[in-house]
Amino acid sequence: MRNIKILLQYDGTRYSGWQSQEHCENTIQGKLTAVLCRMLREEIEVAGSGRTDAGVHALGQVANFKTRSELTCQEILEGLNKYLPEDIAVLSAEEVPDRFHSRLSATGKTYRYHIWNSRIPGVFGRRYQWTIEESLDIEAMRRAAEKLTGTHDFRGFSSIKRGKKSTVRTINEIRIEQNGAEVTLSFTGNGFLYHMVRILTGTLVEIGLHKMNVDEIETILTSGKREKAGVTAPAQGLFLVQVEYS
Amino acid sequence: MRNIKILLQYDGTRYSGWQSQEHCENTIQGKLTAVLCRMLREEIEVAGSGRTDAGVHALGQVANFKTRSELTCQEILEGLNKYLPEDIAVLSAEEVPDRFHSRLSATGKTYRYHIWNSRIPGVFGRRYQWTIEESLDIEAMRRAAEKLTGTHDFRGFSSIKRGKKSTVRTINEIRIEQNGAEVTLSFTGNGFLYHMVRILTGTLVEIGLHKMNVDEIETILTSGKREKAGVTAPAQGLFLVQVEYS
Repeated sequence: MRNIKILLQYDGTRYSGWQSQEHCENTIQGKLTAVLCRMLREEIEVAGSGRTDAGVHALGQVANFKTRSELTCQEILEGLNKYLPEDIAVLSAEEVPDRFHSRLSATGKTYRYHIWNSRIPGVFGRRYQWTIEESLDIEAMRRAAEKLTGTHDFRGFSSIKRGKKSTVRTINEIRIEQNGAEVTLSFTGNGFLYHMVRILTGTLVEIGLHKMNVDEIETILTSGKREKAGVTAPAQGLFLVQVEYS
Repeated sequence: MRNIKILLQYDGTRYSGWQSQEHCENTIQGKLTAVLCRMLREEIEVAGSGRTDAGVHALGQVANFKTRSELTCQEILEGLNKYLPEDIAVLSAEEVPDRFHSRLSATGKTYRYHIWNSRIPGVFGRRYQWTIEESLDIEAMRRAAEKLTGTHDFRGFSSIKRGKKSTVRTINEIRIEQNGAEVTLSFTGNGFLYHMVRILTGTLVEIGLHKMNVDEIETILTSGKREKAGVTAPAQGLFLVQVEYS
């Protein structure tokens, strides 16, 4: 069996997220699986580096699958781009060692959240951003971002129900950039909990609007209480940018 | 009567173009007129710098209208952005001398055409570009662009039926830029005939694909025969970028 790694982009708008669900094949994983099964004429199981929520986009999602097919990687790449819908694109396909697993082998991830900070609508990016009309205090957001960086129990910044799994994660960097009306928040870390990037973003935005203050970050981290954090930012502004492997 | 000049952007995808048509109010001009009449409580006639075809976008369309309203320009700007659909945005509104007319006072225009030149689909820009899978010969396109620059009778590059109006126009510059898969063609001139930018683009693309050769430009210019030129490039890749006034 060959192990094929693919790098892909998708516009998540039309999909119920990455993960295949029973009675719901309108997922990225579902579309990929269907095209691969037809192309390679065998049962294919596609593993992704992680789930993306409904409406979340990817610039660099990674997936892998095992196949007995003798098609070249170039043929697989071209076939996928030919048969996948126009909102999913495969950037590369390569054969990797058998032990490679897109989720288990991942050592880090970068997500980027796009905000449009203006009273004048951003026409062309409107499907891919969260519009905040009132002016954001970027410096306050950066101070809060510093407090979030490092290794913490991020339970308060997640939608996870109580369970036994660890909710400790390490954020290496949160970079906040402003370019005219465009504000982007880039999060790099070793892993992210369910809804974590969107709740971190919602909290940073509330700090940028002076609805919350920077010191509340510590309270959320130590209490682990979701209700103390900010809103969950809308899915449409979020992009999975990159998955790292060692 | 005050004369108000507005600068606007729109995503043309959903519209039947700029110009209001009988029995068809799904136009940019129609939407603007409807919102202005309601806001200013008077009959308003909106003049644009020129029509854009169905599906064509604008980054910097200019329009003007006369009003007796005492609303400030800031109030007009905010009202328009509040009531217009999310695919139309007004960037500025200012009072101008009575003699200003967005079409008659215009001295030049810049259009930009967006091409995605790759076998790998461009997911996020797909609504705003023309995808050409085969590799374009950019140097041949630039040589042809040089032959188009200057003052010529562009009848052969238009969809105009025979008439008395002059079809002579001056193109000051055609700039062709390539950045990875993105190829943009920027046209600056004193005016453009019906479908002219799209037929120029279609012709340059056929030259870039070696389906036509550079010398054919002269034949099209001298014969004035539309059928000798290339295809009309799709509307969705075209943007009105800027209108100049002296």
